[in-house]
Amino acid sequence: MDRIPILRMGATLLVTIQIDMQDQTALSLQDDLAAMIAKTGATGVVIDISALEIVDSFVGRMLSNISGIARILSADTVVVGMRPAVAITLVELGLSLEGVRTALNVERGMAMLDRSRQESRLAS
Amino acid sequence: MDRIPILRMGATLLVTIQIDMQDQTALSLQDDLAAMIAKTGATGVVIDISALEIVDSFVGRMLSNISGIARILSADTVVVGMRPAVAITLVELGLSLEGVRTALNVERGMAMLDRSRQESRLAS
Repeated sequence: MDRIPILRMGATLLVTIQIDMQDQTALSLQDDLAAMIAKTGATGVVIDISALEIVDSFVGRMLSNISGIARILSADTVVVGMRPAVAITLVELGLSLEGVRTALNVERGMAMLDRSRQESRLAS
Repeated sequence: MDRIPILRMGATLLVTIQIDMQDQTALSLQDDLAAMIAKTGATGVVIDISALEIVDSFVGRMLSNISGIARILSADTVVVGMRPAVAITLVELGLSLEGVRTALNVERGMAMLDRSRQESRLAS
């Protein structure tokens, strides 16, 4: 199984990462997500990484890339469910998830996206 | 990675199955889901199987079991995202997903659960 499913929930796309990311899986996910944002006009992406026991520089870069791609396609990205141990390791390794917003869990991530949408509606 | 993450979204728990189910993974999922329903008081479970290319009798039985366990804990289960080819094979094999409700995608599954909740509220 080499493709990670992307679930559509209203204006938000939800991705649950459950497998250790290989190069090809990461590239497929980027492609699929970009295509899905363009097709659905989604304005938010939530990526759940609660199943990941390790987030190395490769996965960190992938999350940054996805976030950057989504932003260009005018969608916000929130990474949710990071384990405390993973956060500790990230900081110890000096890896900052540049440009990536995080939230404790899916519910809070969704709420964060809702707030962003309201703010951009008020600003426009 | 042997545990499938269960995401909480309000009163609904969401599970995305991405890996071929082995005995142990299926048992862990049943246990985790039962514990999570009891802990959160969730009244609905959505299981997305859009990543599965094959649903054999083992997976079919697992879905029936989960649905049965959830029902006893007073939660409804909806299986969503089944591929057309999987549906065809299920029927050809004579496998009926007994007691399992299905919907085309997550959004419709969520809507189905919302309707069930309203009906049970009206009935009570």
